[in-house]
Amino acid sequence: MPTPDPRLAALPTPCLVLDEAKMTKNVGRLAARAAGLGVALRPHLKTAKSVEVAHRVLTGGDGPATVSTLAEAEVFAAAGVRDILYAVGIAPQKLDRVLALRRTGCDLSVILDSAAQAEAVAAASRRAGRPIPALIEIDCDGHRGGLSPDDPALVAVGRILRDGGAELRGVMTHAGESYGVTGGEAHAAFAETERAAAVAAAAALRAADLPCPVVSVGSTPTAHAARDLTGVTELRAGVYVFFDLVMAGIGVCRPEDVALSVLTTVIGHQAARGRVLIDAGWMALSRDRGTAALSRDRGTAAQAVDQGYGMVCDEAGTILPDLIVTQANQEHGIVERRPGTSAAMPDLHVGTRLRILPNHACATAAQHEAYRVLPAAPGAPLAQWPRFGGW
Amino acid sequence: MPTPDPRLAALPTPCLVLDEAKMTKNVGRLAARAAGLGVALRPHLKTAKSVEVAHRVLTGGDGPATVSTLAEAEVFAAAGVRDILYAVGIAPQKLDRVLALRRTGCDLSVILDSAAQAEAVAAASRRAGRPIPALIEIDCDGHRGGLSPDDPALVAVGRILRDGGAELRGVMTHAGESYGVTGGEAHAAFAETERAAAVAAAAALRAADLPCPVVSVGSTPTAHAARDLTGVTELRAGVYVFFDLVMAGIGVCRPEDVALSVLTTVIGHQAARGRVLIDAGWMALSRDRGTAALSRDRGTAAQAVDQGYGMVCDEAGTILPDLIVTQANQEHGIVERRPGTSAAMPDLHVGTRLRILPNHACATAAQHEAYRVLPAAPGAPLAQWPRFGGW
Repeated sequence: MPTPDPRLAALPTPCLVLDEAKMTKNVGRLAARAAGLGVALRPHLKTAKSVEVAHRVLTGGDGPATVSTLAEAEVFAAAGVRDILYAVGIAPQKLDRVLALRRTGCDLSVILDSAAQAEAVAAASRRAGRPIPALIEIDCDGHRGGLSPDDPALVAVGRILRDGGAELRGVMTHAGESYGVTGGEAHAAFAETERAAAVAAAAALRAADLPCPVVSVGSTPTAHAARDLTGVTELRAGVYVFFDLVMAGIGVCRPEDVALSVLTTVIGHQAARGRVLIDAGWMALSRDRGTAALSRDRGTAAQAVDQGYGMVCDEAGTILPDLIVTQANQEHGIVERRPGTSAAMPDLHVGTRLRILPNHACATAAQHEAYRVLPAAPGAPLAQWPRFGGW
Repeated sequence: MPTPDPRLAALPTPCLVLDEAKMTKNVGRLAARAAGLGVALRPHLKTAKSVEVAHRVLTGGDGPATVSTLAEAEVFAAAGVRDILYAVGIAPQKLDRVLALRRTGCDLSVILDSAAQAEAVAAASRRAGRPIPALIEIDCDGHRGGLSPDDPALVAVGRILRDGGAELRGVMTHAGESYGVTGGEAHAAFAETERAAAVAAAAALRAADLPCPVVSVGSTPTAHAARDLTGVTELRAGVYVFFDLVMAGIGVCRPEDVALSVLTTVIGHQAARGRVLIDAGWMALSRDRGTAALSRDRGTAAQAVDQGYGMVCDEAGTILPDLIVTQANQEHGIVERRPGTSAAMPDLHVGTRLRILPNHACATAAQHEAYRVLPAAPGAPLAQWPRFGGW
C-alpha cells in the first residue's frame, strides 16, 4: 500500500485536496480531443471558481471561458480573462452589471431564449450605445431551457436582437440529459443530438438572413464522446477538469482519475453496527448524492453502483473498494461497508485519516474556501489556491 | 397582497434574506421555554455562523454556546464568547487548537465517546499542564455516536479523564431521531428519552464517585416539546433561530415563522410544460431535499408534504401555496405547480422576483457569504451580516 504523501500531514481536516497531476492529465485529455475535432474549447469555470485553476485550464490563460454567475465573470475578467460566456439565462436586472464589465474590455456575452429577454438586451444595448452580444439557447433534449431549432420564436428572437441594437452572436445548447446515460456510444448519440440541434438552429437563423457566427455545444460526457462536430465552432465542458464519481459512474473516466478528494479524520466508532464516524459531513462533502443529479429527483435513473456520499480512500489516495460514506450529518459522516460486500471492516482507529472522492465535484468544491494542492512535482511544497463564491 | 418591501429592490439575486422580526420572535420563544423549564439555554451556532446573529441569540452576548467546528469556536471566541461546547467528537490532532483557544481565556470544552479519545485528551491536558474539560457523549436513540448510559465503558472513560489529568465535566446527548417524527407528543417523548439517558449516565458516573456537573440535552424539536427536565442542567438547539420547512413539516413551527428565504428572479419559461426557471439553483438553495434529512437516506420516513427544493413566496414573502421548486441545477431552479394542485400557473414574467423558503436552514445558509437583513424596524435600512465557513 502506498504511504501517505507527507505533505498532507500538516493539513487540518476536513479539507479539499486537489491532485494537480490528475487535473493536468484531465485538462490535456479534453484539449487534445477538441483539437482533433477542430473546434475551440471554452471551459466552464463554474466547477473550479479559482483563478489559479483557470490559468491552467484556459488556452493562453485568457479565454475563451464559460461561467455560471456574474460574480465568476467579474473575478475572471479581473484576472485577465477576455472572452466570457455567461451561460445562464439573463435576467433584465443584471444587464447593468453586464454593461459595466464589457466597459472594462472583457467580451462578455449572455444567453436567452425569449422575446422578453431579447427586448431587454436590445433596450440595454441602445441605452448604452453599445451592442451586447447574445446567444440564443437551444433545447436539444428537453433538459431545461431553450427554444427548439424549429420554433418560429427562434427567428423572431434573433430579429429582436439584431434590429433592436444588440448583437446576435449565435446559438448554444447543452445536453444535460447525457448525464443520465452510460458509455461512449450513448454519449456520442447525445453529442450528435447537440450538434444537430445547434446546427439546425444556426441554419434557421441564416436562412432568415440573420448572422450566427458562433455555434456552441457541450457537456462533459458529450465532449469526451463526440465523433464529428461539423458546423460547430466551440465545445463547452466543466467538470472534466476534476471529474467525479457521477462521471466515473457513467463511464467518462475512472474513479482513479478524480482529482479532488476531501481529507478527513476518524472521530469515532460504533463497532457493534460496523460503523466508523468521520469529521466530513455534508458541510464538507455536500448533500449531493450523485444519483439525484442523474435522476433529476425522479428516482428512476440511479446509477448502477450507489456511491453513497462518496468512495473512501486511504490517506495515500488508494481506493478502499469495500467502503462508502453511507450517511452525512452536518459535520459527521458515517463510513460503512458497501451493501453486499463480505469483507471485514478494516481497523480504522480514532485519528486515522482517509480521503473521500466526491459524487459531484461542483457541489463538493463549493463547500470549501480553498484547494489544498498536491503539486505534480514530488518535492514541491503544498500550495493553497483560494476559491470564491457568491453571485 | 402585501407589496414587496422596497428595501429588497436593490438586492442582486440570488441572495439570502433574513427577516429579523421573525428571528427575534423565534429566539424569544425558546428562551422563554428554557426559563420555564429551569435550565440554561446553550444555543448551537452552526446554523448561523455569524457574529451578529450570535450576539442576538446568546444570553448577555457572551455564551454559553455550542459549535460544530473549531473555526466556529475561534471566530466566536474572538468576538467575546467565553463558554463554548465543541459538540463533534474530538480528533486527537485537534487538541493543540483546543489548547490554544483555551489559553486565550475561552472555556472551550470537547466531547468524546471512547477510551482512545479520553486518553488523547488526558495526555494533551498533562502536556499542557492544564486540564481540558470533556463531556462524554451519550447515545439516547441510536442516531449517531455516543455510549449507552449502561455501557461499562462510560465509567471507564470517565476514570481515564479524571485520573489522567483532564476534567470530566459531564454528559451530553442529542435525539437526532426526533427529526423523524411529527407533533408535540412525539417530540415530548423524545425529550424524555434524552433526559432519561443523560440523567442515567450522570447517575452512573456519580455512583462511581466521578463528577458530572453538566447534564446537557437537546435538539430543536425536543427543546420545544420538553415538559420536565429534572436532572438536566442545560438545553441545546440551533435551527430554531431561523426555522425551516423540515421543522414546519414536523410541526415545530409554521412556514410563516421561517426567518430565512432566498430572493430569486424569474429567468425563463417553458410554458408548454408549465414551468418557470429561476436563478436560484442548488448553489443558492443547497442540495438538501428535506426528506433526506428525515429519512437519513433510507427513503422510508419522508414527510407528509414534499416541499421539493423549497416553498415559493412572492417578493413580499407571502407563500404561494400551489408552487414549489421541483428541480435544482447548479444555477437554475425549476418552479412548478405542486403535484395534485388544480390551480393555474400564475403569470410570472421574466424579471419577476420570488422568495424561496429553505428545506434546511443550515444547508441553505451555508451556500451564502452573508445575510441581507430586513431589520425589524420598518424604516431602518437593510443590513448585511457576514457569515463565515471553513473548519
